[in-house]
Amino acid sequence: MKQIDSISYPIYFNSIAEKLDKFIEDGKYSRFFILTDEHTALHCLPLITDKVNPDNYDLLEVSAGEESKTIDFCIGIWKMLIDFDADRNSLLINLGGGVVTDLGGFAASTYKRGIDFIHIPTTLLSQVDASIGGKTGIDIDNLKNIIGTFTQPKAVFIEHAFLETLPARQIKSGTAEMLKHGLIADADYWHALKNSNLEKPEAELVYQSAVIKNKVVTEDPSERGQRKILNFGHTIGHALESYSLDHDKNPLTHGEAIAAGMICEAWLSHQKCDLPAADLDEIVSTLLAIYGKYQVKEASFVELRNIMKKDKKNQGGKINCSLLTKIGDCRIDNICTDDELCDSLRYYAQLEYARV
Amino acid sequence: MKQIDSISYPIYFNSIAEKLDKFIEDGKYSRFFILTDEHTALHCLPLITDKVNPDNYDLLEVSAGEESKTIDFCIGIWKMLIDFDADRNSLLINLGGGVVTDLGGFAASTYKRGIDFIHIPTTLLSQVDASIGGKTGIDIDNLKNIIGTFTQPKAVFIEHAFLETLPARQIKSGTAEMLKHGLIADADYWHALKNSNLEKPEAELVYQSAVIKNKVVTEDPSERGQRKILNFGHTIGHALESYSLDHDKNPLTHGEAIAAGMICEAWLSHQKCDLPAADLDEIVSTLLAIYGKYQVKEASFVELRNIMKKDKKNQGGKINCSLLTKIGDCRIDNICTDDELCDSLRYYAQLEYARV
Repeated sequence: MKQIDSISYPIYFNSIAEKLDKFIEDGKYSRFFILTDEHTALHCLPLITDKVNPDNYDLLEVSAGEESKTIDFCIGIWKMLIDFDADRNSLLINLGGGVVTDLGGFAASTYKRGIDFIHIPTTLLSQVDASIGGKTGIDIDNLKNIIGTFTQPKAVFIEHAFLETLPARQIKSGTAEMLKHGLIADADYWHALKNSNLEKPEAELVYQSAVIKNKVVTEDPSERGQRKILNFGHTIGHALESYSLDHDKNPLTHGEAIAAGMICEAWLSHQKCDLPAADLDEIVSTLLAIYGKYQVKEASFVELRNIMKKDKKNQGGKINCSLLTKIGDCRIDNICTDDELCDSLRYYAQLEYARV
Repeated sequence: MKQIDSISYPIYFNSIAEKLDKFIEDGKYSRFFILTDEHTALHCLPLITDKVNPDNYDLLEVSAGEESKTIDFCIGIWKMLIDFDADRNSLLINLGGGVVTDLGGFAASTYKRGIDFIHIPTTLLSQVDASIGGKTGIDIDNLKNIIGTFTQPKAVFIEHAFLETLPARQIKSGTAEMLKHGLIADADYWHALKNSNLEKPEAELVYQSAVIKNKVVTEDPSERGQRKILNFGHTIGHALESYSLDHDKNPLTHGEAIAAGMICEAWLSHQKCDLPAADLDEIVSTLLAIYGKYQVKEASFVELRNIMKKDKKNQGGKINCSLLTKIGDCRIDNICTDDELCDSLRYYAQLEYARV
């Protein structure tokens, strides 16, 4: 069983059976609470509750989906903790995808000015991304993570077995962040990953992705500088995700939106940071083959740009992107003009894509 | 002009004219925002806006009073910051009493995962208490500060001139915390203070009170231990304050509630921590003479106790008080039974009080 030592806490791999009970016992918590959504309550909770004393915990549940990542659901969690008389020495276990870990982390970091929490991420996306790095957050008016804190969990437990319960589209959503980790920091990993079976990512590749994410956040916990490389593909990707959530009946997943954002921002990288044309082609063909193409229309550009203007990385009203210099290397703080951003969307819109 | 160095920031006394503008300039903020209520907008804001460049800031305003210290007003502040496109390099200046500094501090500490803020406390209570120590907070269902963070401001500016704009009842509300500082940590200060003109507290006495508060919080920023001495009078006092807010047309001020709470907890101190009878008598007669007596009825005891059960200091469902061993010394973590708490309320209820 593997373990990564993060900023101030361990990330355990495939260790719930052996380590969770002892972790709770050693923490001398007065009690603990498990936050789930209806899916993780059904598919993942038994693995936890089999291992711990049933007298010591209570269950909290929110609805599955990004719609739960709001202040209203956060207030719901606070009120449940109040009703259960949760004291400062309580522990919150966030069992779910990124929505549950971000929302639960924010609720815990502010309840009675902060109680301990741990993450047990159950989606690939949250295993390789959301659960690592101490970001908590909720959305307001579809602005993702506009409110939150930097608060580290006390531990993260990553279980490969949970991935077997996931639909294929959710697995693909997670592999987008894994591919991003290769693009921004490790060309070998990118090549290994894109040539692997992405429908069933191997445990070793999941582990390596967590290692990359952890290395970046450990060196810059509060995102003053280099941590921003993780935002490659996200300036445009987040805008597409918000836009799609507002306009589409079947909205893009996070990974699908970020894949489209990475194509646009790879094009910007080619224009502004000398990303070689061969690298751009490789990125575009790889991502299109996996994620297909989203219909982006010229009429949506104004709204997309307005969403980008709210991006947390911006300073002084300027839109700030993290761009690639080559596959495996990323440079932060590239100011992009409105024209450049629109041109990157136009580039994406004109790509030819033959469904395979 | 005096200055205290707190945990990671300075507390300036009577230095706005000389230091505020330079502080903002040195911080290289993209812009700043001033949070006021309608009183401080009228009486205190001109002192600030006279000193700074009017092109660089926007004003945010909440209603005066504890009713504003809610998640709804916090959401209002977040949305105003979003509408103003406030970036991560913005500064929030909280100009007001404890409601504005607690609420503004919480909003700033969570907006985009934290922007810088400073406090300019305008009430005596916030000058000697709320603005020092890095506690931010909002109330839910009348549970005071149940949600919040420990986040230090970047500076605090305490101006004695602001006290001249305050009604007498608000001044008295602040002196209760000053008297508490003497009771828990400095007998000489207690005696000097109670023999001074409490209707117009001298700048030197305000400064000394801030020094005591700062010393306690600097030694225990996140309230793991000794900082809890600041809660003397507050377990019962907060319950009376919440109760009064729900039931009385003209509710108790914070200081009035804490004064009654200090009498009850001084009685508990006499029973449980050997506070000498002479000290108890001195505390009771001093506080009654200043604050008068609140009508506490036996019928309200159950509700009061239920409020106390929600106190953040409690652990494992037990009500935990900070009690005096003598005037000038306080001991934390005294578990009090329901009977003891009710008896202390009964003691208070039977006190004879001749209005002077």
